[in-house]
Amino acid sequence: MRVVRWQESTRGELSELLPEAVVVLPIGATEQHGPHLATGTDALLATEIVERAVPAAAIERPFVIAPTQSYGASDHHLPFGGTLSLTVETLIAVLVDLGRSIAAGGGRRLVIVNGHGGNQGVCHAAGSAISTRYGVAVAHIDYWAVADTFPGHAGEFETSLVMGVRPELVRERKPRERLPEPRAIPGAGIHSAAVWDDIDGYTDDPARATAEDGTKTLDRLVAEMTNRLIECARQL
Amino acid sequence: MRVVRWQESTRGELSELLPEAVVVLPIGATEQHGPHLATGTDALLATEIVERAVPAAAIERPFVIAPTQSYGASDHHLPFGGTLSLTVETLIAVLVDLGRSIAAGGGRRLVIVNGHGGNQGVCHAAGSAISTRYGVAVAHIDYWAVADTFPGHAGEFETSLVMGVRPELVRERKPRERLPEPRAIPGAGIHSAAVWDDIDGYTDDPARATAEDGTKTLDRLVAEMTNRLIECARQL
Amino acid sequence: MRVVRWQESTRGELSELLPEAVVVLPIGATEQHGPHLATGTDALLATEIVERAVPAAAIERPFVIAPTQSYGASDHHLPFGGTLSLTVETLIAVLVDLGRSIAAGGGRRLVIVNGHGGNQGVCHAAGSAISTRYGVAVAHIDYWAVADTFPGHAGEFETSLVMGVRPELVRERKPRERLPEPRAIPGAGIHSAAVWDDIDGYTDDPARATAEDGTKTLDRLVAEMTNRLIECARQL
Amino acid sequence: MRVVRWQESTRGELSELLPEAVVVLPIGATEQHGPHLATGTDALLATEIVERAVPAAAIERPFVIAPTQSYGASDHHLPFGGTLSLTVETLIAVLVDLGRSIAAGGGRRLVIVNGHGGNQGVCHAAGSAISTRYGVAVAHIDYWAVADTFPGHAGEFETSLVMGVRPELVRERKPRERLPEPRAIPGAGIHSAAVWDDIDGYTDDPARATAEDGTKTLDRLVAEMTNRLIECARQL
Amino acid sequence: MRVVRWQESTRGELSELLPEAVVVLPIGATEQHGPHLATGTDALLATEIVERAVPAAAIERPFVIAPTQSYGASDHHLPFGGTLSLTVETLIAVLVDLGRSIAAGGGRRLVIVNGHGGNQGVCHAAGSAISTRYGVAVAHIDYWAVADTFPGHAGEFETSLVMGVRPELVRERKPRERLPEPRAIPGAGIHSAAVWDDIDGYTDDPARATAEDGTKTLDRLVAEMTNRLIECARQL
Amino acid sequence: MRVVRWQESTRGELSELLPEAVVVLPIGATEQHGPHLATGTDALLATEIVERAVPAAAIERPFVIAPTQSYGASDHHLPFGGTLSLTVETLIAVLVDLGRSIAAGGGRRLVIVNGHGGNQGVCHAAGSAISTRYGVAVAHIDYWAVADTFPGHAGEFETSLVMGVRPELVRERKPRERLPEPRAIPGAGIHSAAVWDDIDGYTDDPARATAEDGTKTLDRLVAEMTNRLIECARQL
Repeated sequence: MRVVRWQESTRGELSELLPEAVVVLPIGATEQHGPHLATGTDALLATEIVERAVPAAAIERPFVIAPTQSYGASDHHLPFGGTLSLTVETLIAVLVDLGRSIAAGGGRRLVIVNGHGGNQGVCHAAGSAISTRYGVAVAHIDYWAVADTFPGHAGEFETSLVMGVRPELVRERKPRERLPEPRAIPGAGIHSAAVWDDIDGYTDDPARATAEDGTKTLDRLVAEMTNRLIECARQL
Repeated sequence: MRVVRWQESTRGELSELLPEAVVVLPIGATEQHGPHLATGTDALLATEIVERAVPAAAIERPFVIAPTQSYGASDHHLPFGGTLSLTVETLIAVLVDLGRSIAAGGGRRLVIVNGHGGNQGVCHAAGSAISTRYGVAVAHIDYWAVADTFPGHAGEFETSLVMGVRPELVRERKPRERLPEPRAIPGAGIHSAAVWDDIDGYTDDPARATAEDGTKTLDRLVAEMTNRLIECARQL
Repeated sequence: MRVVRWQESTRGELSELLPEAVVVLPIGATEQHGPHLATGTDALLATEIVERAVPAAAIERPFVIAPTQSYGASDHHLPFGGTLSLTVETLIAVLVDLGRSIAAGGGRRLVIVNGHGGNQGVCHAAGSAISTRYGVAVAHIDYWAVADTFPGHAGEFETSLVMGVRPELVRERKPRERLPEPRAIPGAGIHSAAVWDDIDGYTDDPARATAEDGTKTLDRLVAEMTNRLIECARQL
Repeated sequence: MRVVRWQESTRGELSELLPEAVVVLPIGATEQHGPHLATGTDALLATEIVERAVPAAAIERPFVIAPTQSYGASDHHLPFGGTLSLTVETLIAVLVDLGRSIAAGGGRRLVIVNGHGGNQGVCHAAGSAISTRYGVAVAHIDYWAVADTFPGHAGEFETSLVMGVRPELVRERKPRERLPEPRAIPGAGIHSAAVWDDIDGYTDDPARATAEDGTKTLDRLVAEMTNRLIECARQL
Repeated sequence: MRVVRWQESTRGELSELLPEAVVVLPIGATEQHGPHLATGTDALLATEIVERAVPAAAIERPFVIAPTQSYGASDHHLPFGGTLSLTVETLIAVLVDLGRSIAAGGGRRLVIVNGHGGNQGVCHAAGSAISTRYGVAVAHIDYWAVADTFPGHAGEFETSLVMGVRPELVRERKPRERLPEPRAIPGAGIHSAAVWDDIDGYTDDPARATAEDGTKTLDRLVAEMTNRLIECARQL
Repeated sequence: MRVVRWQESTRGELSELLPEAVVVLPIGATEQHGPHLATGTDALLATEIVERAVPAAAIERPFVIAPTQSYGASDHHLPFGGTLSLTVETLIAVLVDLGRSIAAGGGRRLVIVNGHGGNQGVCHAAGSAISTRYGVAVAHIDYWAVADTFPGHAGEFETSLVMGVRPELVRERKPRERLPEPRAIPGAGIHSAAVWDDIDGYTDDPARATAEDGTKTLDRLVAEMTNRLIECARQL
């Protein structure tokens, strides 16, 4: 089936595709990723995975990839600098407005592929609102949740992935002598400045990252995301 | 350590306790729970677990239990009737205002114990906002997530629990000949009217519920929640 | 006629009742009530009066009692500690959302029984919005306004009432040598921090309160509220 | 003491006056007033009374009259036509913004003189928010509440007053054979379309109005409002 | 064709006129205008021009003049004192609510005549929202943009105009030895406190203003505004 | 001076640059552009011009290019399909949040380069709010306004530009026999569905566009934008 980018298509092409299509919206963040990693990491990776997974997923329905939402809910990273953040209220409004637009254009299915932990609540809340207000079926998927991975933040996992796809976005990585032990409670979500202060804004040890690992992990994520998108096409 | 209910304490008692205490806010919903279960189930169970777990958890810090937030984000249940729902925007505003109040009263730690799946995104988003805006450390815990359980909605799990604590709130349960198979995609959150329409607004088979199972499960949930609250007292 | 609590009823029971019923929503506050009185006083008393008055009022229509809204608009009490307050904007949104839900569930009549002076404007504004937006007829009644009483705040009146129903929520009451004279202008509503600062956050003299007075006053309030609710059933 | 209109003063004059002054904001509505009365009645009368009362009240403090807020919360009158209404949320925001501006300009006292019943809740809610957020002391006074009057809506009372001050704004008044009996419950605020539909959008009988009565009533209202404003100057 | 003021008309008169009429809403500001000019200048001038231009424009359609919106978006003038400002969000809400009301009353055409530079974005944004949400066609016209004029702020232009219509609102004008050179970039809108700080809150040299110039300019503006309003009647 | 993309920089690099830098935010839209042009045109062109102009402008200050805001205020294009639009309220919130973030990161200067007429009011309103709330100096520039051009919408101008930079985004262009004459009033902004309906959602005649014209125009726009950005570096 056909795969198009929304922004590269005309109104006529979109009007024809949308009633049957799955719209995929990558959402990331533009926020501090430690001293070594580019601030655009989350938007970059969500976009990369969508770009690779969607073509393989378009078996039963056409897919339309919407422009990446580069700005996420990152207020907790503002104290570290380099962060462009939307409040949770604003980001919910953005997603709800986009859901409204999809409905207005004849669309019925939206998958939000999320690249930033801070967006999880927003995606859930907005997905619920879009569905009940506009009748668009919504799925939201954290890209790291499709495989058995520990994403962390700006640690080995993300650094590897960026080394795999855009190595020039990774700066010098000083090894951490001791792995930080972030506050965590199983089954609980924690929101506290201390969580981030304790670890200087990034988890585990980016110095252990390799481009090879990143490439492998990305392949795995793309393969699993493809499966999820196929399921979305079937079930939404 | 001391355990009090906020609403039963005076301003002086609270001003003394709050700087060291953990405030626990149970949040539920007032929404349709199938043909057989009372609409207040989620608020009831979140409150019940908090009431039982907190006294055992108050080892290292005092605990203050706030009045239960009985109204949740249940717009997806409005079509079935019997539902009092706040929009996600309103419920976030409620939680953020409460976080602001806790900070104004000298409090520094808030644990939201959640009894309703539709509140997950709201708790996450509000927790983030409370932490960054008012410097209150927030944890949010879905009560069913502390043990290895499948909560469903108004199915065997919840019906058992209510049979254990308030059996008069359970009406006649017609057995389901075939278990419904709700749409689900591993790792994805789905928001779609069809999800609920397919299964008449409740999961699996409430007829299989027993008070005995409910009591056992509740004991297990309370024990695990106690552990989590102790961790909150330590880490927040 | 039938009287039910919303949260103890099933969706089917509510769907059947709501088109003919009067929904009663008690609303209070969780806020400082001087050095002697529990912070939950307003929610407690509004609930108590509703619970007692409704059964007698259900002559011509069924009544549905909704879960008490325990959090009110109490920002002016935040400086005294022990206060969980919603901003006026948030509380209006809460009430409007509940009105929307009642309409969605087939309801047509809502009576808000209010236990907190700070909620008066909010109840009026929200009542107007619910009526014009959702076609639900709304009445809002301050419980102290149905009889010829001077409610004050945490003074003799409220302290007596709480002594009558939950005496353990009243702490030691130091007599006031001189009755404070709060700023007041007949026919004017005044909002000023000085109003509360002048009188240490509570009016007149709680030491004069007695459980006996409280019981009598409560009986009178319940009887009058019953009359008002009967009128609501007739006129809304 | 000095009395000025805000809009006719310079920034320097206002900066000098505001710290000691009482700012008076007339607020009305622009809404249907039956078949016979101009839609601007409420703004007209609030302004008229302010203009007459303030000069006599400026004994102990200077007074600054702000431009009349002509648009009120009149959604319930929209179905009758001829109505320019703000939602309650918008009008609260307007008043809160004006309170913020007064604080920014050095002002400390605001009296809102209200000419429209639909604004009552809004004035109360906004007054509370202005006081707690910006430290400005606020009083709000419904102009008809200062004397022992029954204002109604577009009935004998208002029609008389307009006949007294702007007789050309009163059109032909057809006598009502039978006085309408509006739904009313003592001590309750009622918001229902039926209240207004029953009486064709205006109360009692405007045909009984006379300019003479209007003039007398207005004199009485002005005298009483003067007293209230003097009290505001003393107590705020 | 007929010209009426909304606030002086009855609901019946307006219901008859609105479907064919052009509604004209003057909007100004109440904000500092230097040391010499009254703060109400913008509302005054927008109203004056509307009052003069509309009668001549009512050739093909009736016109309805709405009450002037005296409060504009003037947050950038708050630091100079004497300013009553609405945030941009609030002012947009006000205009959108008025547009909604016009639609509810049967109106289809709205012209906003703006007297304050700070309102430009608000008028544009609100005009768009009114049109798409309520189907009312909206034009917004800055009064100074209809002729080839340099408006500045509280400088020669505005001072002349006020001297022409309300000379008592102009105080002593100290000549400026050197004309200030405000920051400006062709084709760019600039928002910066420094822009206003540099020039003490007013542009160019009010001492050069004359009543004669003001009268001439006003005549020209009225004539051109008349033409624009005629066009609005034709094209909206 | 240095030019970086925000998303490709680390927090440390940005923290160092921001106090002296000019942040440039391209903003466009994702909306119908007639039957022939891709919906991403406005975001594409704003980004293209920023990418070309900034390097030449970074003479006196470093420049930081933020990720393009691809979603604009396009509700008026929703009826034509293919449109992803934010309401004006949401887009203002987005820009204000980004301004807040820039301030939090130490930035002091923001230039919004706008590619969509529907965003003009939003940029103005948000620019004002950012400046007064966060002390960031803001300029907003419509890219077409820097040269003497008639932009239209999806007509010859835009089509030429896209043919110059991304010719594959232009589909077959059917010549228009008669040039449409859009409703327009000099000096007035018009918001009306009829404006767009009359011309099938695009202005003039895209068939007259050539890549050569587009390239020339783009060069001219880039050169002029460079000048404006240099001025921004000097004056903001």
